[in-house]
Amino acid sequence: MKETILSNTDRAEVLAHALPYIQRFQGKTVVIKYGGNAMINEELKTAVIRDTILLSCVGIRVVLVHGGGPEIEGMLRALGKESHFVRGLRYTSEDVMEVVQMVLCGKVNKDITTLIQQAGGRALGLSGMDGGLFRARRFRPDGEDLGLVGEIEFVDADFLNTLLDSAVIPVISSVALGTGEDAGRSLNINADSAAARIACALKAEKLILMTDVQGILRDIKDPDSLIKVINRSEVGGLEKDGIVSRGMIPKVDCCTLALDGGVVRTHIIDGRVPHALLVELFTDEGIGTMIVKD
Amino acid sequence: MKETILSNTDRAEVLAHALPYIQRFQGKTVVIKYGGNAMINEELKTAVIRDTILLSCVGIRVVLVHGGGPEIEGMLRALGKESHFVRGLRYTSEDVMEVVQMVLCGKVNKDITTLIQQAGGRALGLSGMDGGLFRARRFRPDGEDLGLVGEIEFVDADFLNTLLDSAVIPVISSVALGTGEDAGRSLNINADSAAARIACALKAEKLILMTDVQGILRDIKDPDSLIKVINRSEVGGLEKDGIVSRGMIPKVDCCTLALDGGVVRTHIIDGRVPHALLVELFTDEGIGTMIVKD
Amino acid sequence: MKETILSNTDRAEVLAHALPYIQRFQGKTVVIKYGGNAMINEELKTAVIRDTILLSCVGIRVVLVHGGGPEIEGMLRALGKESHFVRGLRYTSEDVMEVVQMVLCGKVNKDITTLIQQAGGRALGLSGMDGGLFRARRFRPDGEDLGLVGEIEFVDADFLNTLLDSAVIPVISSVALGTGEDAGRSLNINADSAAARIACALKAEKLILMTDVQGILRDIKDPDSLIKVINRSEVGGLEKDGIVSRGMIPKVDCCTLALDGGVVRTHIIDGRVPHALLVELFTDEGIGTMIVKD
Amino acid sequence: MKETILSNTDRAEVLAHALPYIQRFQGKTVVIKYGGNAMINEELKTAVIRDTILLSCVGIRVVLVHGGGPEIEGMLRALGKESHFVRGLRYTSEDVMEVVQMVLCGKVNKDITTLIQQAGGRALGLSGMDGGLFRARRFRPDGEDLGLVGEIEFVDADFLNTLLDSAVIPVISSVALGTGEDAGRSLNINADSAAARIACALKAEKLILMTDVQGILRDIKDPDSLIKVINRSEVGGLEKDGIVSRGMIPKVDCCTLALDGGVVRTHIIDGRVPHALLVELFTDEGIGTMIVKD
Amino acid sequence: MKETILSNTDRAEVLAHALPYIQRFQGKTVVIKYGGNAMINEELKTAVIRDTILLSCVGIRVVLVHGGGPEIEGMLRALGKESHFVRGLRYTSEDVMEVVQMVLCGKVNKDITTLIQQAGGRALGLSGMDGGLFRARRFRPDGEDLGLVGEIEFVDADFLNTLLDSAVIPVISSVALGTGEDAGRSLNINADSAAARIACALKAEKLILMTDVQGILRDIKDPDSLIKVINRSEVGGLEKDGIVSRGMIPKVDCCTLALDGGVVRTHIIDGRVPHALLVELFTDEGIGTMIVKD
Amino acid sequence: MKETILSNTDRAEVLAHALPYIQRFQGKTVVIKYGGNAMINEELKTAVIRDTILLSCVGIRVVLVHGGGPEIEGMLRALGKESHFVRGLRYTSEDVMEVVQMVLCGKVNKDITTLIQQAGGRALGLSGMDGGLFRARRFRPDGEDLGLVGEIEFVDADFLNTLLDSAVIPVISSVALGTGEDAGRSLNINADSAAARIACALKAEKLILMTDVQGILRDIKDPDSLIKVINRSEVGGLEKDGIVSRGMIPKVDCCTLALDGGVVRTHIIDGRVPHALLVELFTDEGIGTMIVKD
Repeated sequence: MKETILSNTDRAEVLAHALPYIQRFQGKTVVIKYGGNAMINEELKTAVIRDTILLSCVGIRVVLVHGGGPEIEGMLRALGKESHFVRGLRYTSEDVMEVVQMVLCGKVNKDITTLIQQAGGRALGLSGMDGGLFRARRFRPDGEDLGLVGEIEFVDADFLNTLLDSAVIPVISSVALGTGEDAGRSLNINADSAAARIACALKAEKLILMTDVQGILRDIKDPDSLIKVINRSEVGGLEKDGIVSRGMIPKVDCCTLALDGGVVRTHIIDGRVPHALLVELFTDEGIGTMIVKD
Repeated sequence: MKETILSNTDRAEVLAHALPYIQRFQGKTVVIKYGGNAMINEELKTAVIRDTILLSCVGIRVVLVHGGGPEIEGMLRALGKESHFVRGLRYTSEDVMEVVQMVLCGKVNKDITTLIQQAGGRALGLSGMDGGLFRARRFRPDGEDLGLVGEIEFVDADFLNTLLDSAVIPVISSVALGTGEDAGRSLNINADSAAARIACALKAEKLILMTDVQGILRDIKDPDSLIKVINRSEVGGLEKDGIVSRGMIPKVDCCTLALDGGVVRTHIIDGRVPHALLVELFTDEGIGTMIVKD
Repeated sequence: MKETILSNTDRAEVLAHALPYIQRFQGKTVVIKYGGNAMINEELKTAVIRDTILLSCVGIRVVLVHGGGPEIEGMLRALGKESHFVRGLRYTSEDVMEVVQMVLCGKVNKDITTLIQQAGGRALGLSGMDGGLFRARRFRPDGEDLGLVGEIEFVDADFLNTLLDSAVIPVISSVALGTGEDAGRSLNINADSAAARIACALKAEKLILMTDVQGILRDIKDPDSLIKVINRSEVGGLEKDGIVSRGMIPKVDCCTLALDGGVVRTHIIDGRVPHALLVELFTDEGIGTMIVKD
Repeated sequence: MKETILSNTDRAEVLAHALPYIQRFQGKTVVIKYGGNAMINEELKTAVIRDTILLSCVGIRVVLVHGGGPEIEGMLRALGKESHFVRGLRYTSEDVMEVVQMVLCGKVNKDITTLIQQAGGRALGLSGMDGGLFRARRFRPDGEDLGLVGEIEFVDADFLNTLLDSAVIPVISSVALGTGEDAGRSLNINADSAAARIACALKAEKLILMTDVQGILRDIKDPDSLIKVINRSEVGGLEKDGIVSRGMIPKVDCCTLALDGGVVRTHIIDGRVPHALLVELFTDEGIGTMIVKD
Repeated sequence: MKETILSNTDRAEVLAHALPYIQRFQGKTVVIKYGGNAMINEELKTAVIRDTILLSCVGIRVVLVHGGGPEIEGMLRALGKESHFVRGLRYTSEDVMEVVQMVLCGKVNKDITTLIQQAGGRALGLSGMDGGLFRARRFRPDGEDLGLVGEIEFVDADFLNTLLDSAVIPVISSVALGTGEDAGRSLNINADSAAARIACALKAEKLILMTDVQGILRDIKDPDSLIKVINRSEVGGLEKDGIVSRGMIPKVDCCTLALDGGVVRTHIIDGRVPHALLVELFTDEGIGTMIVKD
Repeated sequence: MKETILSNTDRAEVLAHALPYIQRFQGKTVVIKYGGNAMINEELKTAVIRDTILLSCVGIRVVLVHGGGPEIEGMLRALGKESHFVRGLRYTSEDVMEVVQMVLCGKVNKDITTLIQQAGGRALGLSGMDGGLFRARRFRPDGEDLGLVGEIEFVDADFLNTLLDSAVIPVISSVALGTGEDAGRSLNINADSAAARIACALKAEKLILMTDVQGILRDIKDPDSLIKVINRSEVGGLEKDGIVSRGMIPKVDCCTLALDGGVVRTHIIDGRVPHALLVELFTDEGIGTMIVKD
């Protein structure tokens, strides 16, 4: 945008147009899975951090859940630890888990928290261990052993709500305390799925998954074929027809899980677009693909 | 502005630019004297109402003080009541006072309150009588008898702060309960001066007086000669030099009264500019003339 | 009463006798429709104001709803506005509505509020617009168009309860915000009916309608034929038998509406008797006619 | 009073006259030493209990401190315990102390508490031991050994204020925990003096000592010679001149102690007059002798 | 215990072992009937008081209910009052009741309260009259007239919970206000049964009855035959088989009443063992006989 | 300890002996620097965690500050990063800082938090970034450049107190946000010194530094020469005389800094002794060396 062409009155006009959107979402909870390019590219990163603070400033209850695949990858490599894969999924050995926890909670989480604090927001970095935020059991898709990979079975919504009531932004690493046989052990949780479970526990207005794609395309080669809205009941068909691509299926499944758990709207948005969060929340068209209840 | 030329990303960018201003004023109190053209022209009126709600939405504690000269004038005429003037100021007889109170509290105040409620804000219409909000004594400039004209000697800041704490927008008519000999009588208060006293009682960050002029011009015939900032200590000189025009002097005096009473910044802005409030608060340049402490 | 004949001990004795009544009503809500002679005669006015404060002082939650027919009438005349009548009811044109709102909210309401404040009570003048206190839809009895006359469909009980919790006396003008087609418009509400709706919303202990008659007389010409208590189920018969007079029917209907909405007792009392409110609440016999659930 | 001659309107009038007194004392603290005839005569007893509840009902913070000389005397006699006297004051041996505590805390205190509860008030019976309400040291006037007689050195005002905030009436036996050498022992406190100390700790508006005399008479034989008001500075002279009688001196000294400790007004009233408390608080003349700051 | 043989580390180890017990009972309510030898022997008394404070210190909500048979007996004798017995139960005449109330509320209760305060705890002595803590009706087992003996029909749990929330230890005399025909009269309540009713009202975790026996013995002559745990459903059989001794039956019945009213566990413990309370709560084996739900 | 020789009564006796210590420290704040052997040896670790929870259970406000030298060392080695040393202190390059933050916040902190949660406590892992807990500036002893080493200049005591008020145990990594030139950068803080600053900010009762030595020995070779108490004013002499060993000087300096900042007592204790914390707090002798105000 050639900013210079905008007069102050023009700018004021734009702000004034945001009012109904602000009114609509004030006091509502929005859970954002932050990841992909938007977490690597410095400019996008700054934009996400500032957008998050802005949402919080206008009274939206924002929760930020982050992954950290590339950083984990990098650290494993640096430490010369090998990963092996099971059906295309990384097996999380105890050795790997130690690195996952250390990188997510000690590096990525604290970096995001620092950025928010530095930009004038109030953030608290948390993992599932802190205050017993969440507890998980082993996750064994089709009985497959993936090592210390877990799925969340409990989220302490009261704890998060206390923070949100004081306008603190919880920044959450998707590492959980195990239960049962895994009591006392950390388990590695997929960040999209952690975000979905948190959104359910908080009865969130929106779950927003930031990705590196435009959304769901009817024809993967045609950027103009973006599907803007999908009903919950259409998801099965789209997956069967192969329109939801292989890599997109787990994200879509997180959305349906959230919808079934009481979340109002779910979004798969393009984190490569600057201020994608503001576009999603404060314009009529929004961005990416929205999956909603029927 | 040709709005269509702005993409959603452009709009998001503008919103993102507002963040530092929002952060600066969040939790601060802004007292606005609403009057003039902005209260008559329907489009400007809508803009002021929405701007006020927006400020409140982003956590600014907004108080709206209104006058109502033209409506009072109109009603006096309709009732065939004559006003006489003393040194150019309207003498407020008991008869006139009854009309003043009725029009301000019953018409103007309720109309503004209705507009805010209708646009999704939460407003409470108040006069000095309600909850004993303010008390006044007779105002006799240079001993001149102006009838039931008063000046405020007490504002119940706790009451206003309780409302502001729950994000309610107080809409205030400048009518007060008299004290001493005038106990039980209503007194007519100049709205600029009521706003200044309220700003002092609330230790406001800003007092904003909406007028129908650009601000203070060095040369009244040259619109490019706007003085953007005046220090408190310069005011005397400017008044003496005749640069502050006759009609402007009372407004400037309200500003210095507010500054001396602990208000941080005071502004004389042009209510004829759409969204003047947002321009003032959310851009670097602001609008109109600002008078500040040395 | 020749007061001088009462010794201080006699006076103390009378106060002591009031204890069981105070205990019975403490913490309970009493909604009073204030109107008629008691609002015009200066002595009666003073008595009502002081009684209201006394009730509030002993821990009763008092709400005052007022009309203002004569003042509206006077102002319409002074402004040379003509009213026309439909089936004996005044048609409220936009012109008339403007005067109704102005007189009720700006004159009558503020005068009462001033009197209470002046007598050491704490009152807050409100209309249906303030804080969105109530919303109404058009009232069209038997499909008849009465212009901007409405009936209340929502009362914000929480708002009133917050005020009552801090021992503030809400003084309420029966003007409401319209909804649907009338969104943004003020509607004129009958004050008795507004009081009844408020009493329902607050699950009041008592609804008291102040009138200029003794109550319901079995024989309208015989002041000794006052009916002290009527059961809800008897109302129909009394109306049919013509014992409830034409002018009294709407008041009695407000009482049955309140009883059906959860109010415990309803009263039609004689506002011309000094301290009628205290007589009603603090003596065994009470005053006027009481209509109660079966 | 021949009650029948009072119409309901007369009664309402009397109640209405009480308003300014209620307004004056609402939220203020009144500490009452209850004793003498008013604690023995059944009719007077009922009146005091009801008056106390009435004061509490209208928002006055009432504390009741009681003695119990006759009951103690009776129990000592029944148990065949002999008291010996030192300079006309009863020596409190350990044996006697046990009876004092038992009778005050177990009989008199619980009887009063029962009466208040039974009459619909909320009372809590307390001694100095309960919650550490007060602590005392030995009292040795002019070095004289009186055994386990103490004077209060600490009152837990916060504890009492918490009760008063919930409109509970504390009923207090003047028995205290000893300190220093007397740690763990109960000490017998003069009830007038306990009331004075409590009034100081609570910064009470009034200390009222109920006695069996009219007040301070200029001529003890002339009931018309009652002194209605004494200034603090006059007390010395009146005592020196013998106008304050021997038996009255300790009571007057409690009043001056209270005044010096911040209490606003102190009263020596005639408990034999029915509803003396109401007469004192709710009439202009009051009753008995008032000692006030200069 | 030869204490000198314990090193500080040994002591620390013992403390550390108490953690899981503390965690289990923190925030839970324990109602203790305090009586028998433990109330007479000075050493045991000191131990009970300190144990009670320790329980309160670690966050357990402790309520102490006491009897006072021997003190009442002694006072009746000292006053030369004769008791007569009905079916082995003392008949409580008005005369006797006066002594019961006086001794329990004025002597025993205040002595315990003093000891707790003196040892650094915070205790409040209460009877059923105070704050209307409990109300009772006549108790007539098999229609037998026992005079002013009552059974509790209402306990004000909110009042007790408010005290427990501030870590105050309520010390309760089992005297109650009568209702109905006995309104205004004090009734004498069996302390075990009062404790059981209080435990029900508070949904206590534990009811502990301190006695002067080991617990329930299978063979009353064989101290090694202690029954450690009894199920609710076994009680009937044990009573029928005469294993629950005559004197023990009322205590066991209090336990079953408590269990049926929602208490989790009930205990009959040996108050002659020093620190029996700590042994019960902080060791695996506990002490005495526990009766539990099936 | 041969535990079997302790009867349950013996155990209860030991618990009872702890009461006065619990009473002394309840509601007080204790800041513990956790490190050394006690963080490595599994048995000691378990003991520290349980002791910490026990302290929290009995109402002591516990803050745990941890270091993590060995883990950082190990990770640096594993990553093949070389450290260089300046005057014997490790230079913290940006590379090293990344590892420090990651290991402290992501590994050590979360491991401790997990252990506490697992043992039934409630812990929240924090770094200086979280909620802006603390801010630091560069630390340059004698102008020496140590890279990203900082010293704390601000601790948000309110934030910690809110957590402590809800009985949460804050577990704190000594990493801080930089200010000024280092704004947005993480700085490495010595954990002893972080603990001392936190203790000052909280006006702690005690600062306890866990070490791997007995305390300060008069003769370093003679374990019987432990100095149990040192006055603040003696510290200078002892350092000058070489009695405070080289390695001990920084720890002693943290103690004097804390004492000068308002902490009541400071302790250097031997973390190799099991339950050293309980020995310190719950026995008369305590453990290690205590440095106190004169």
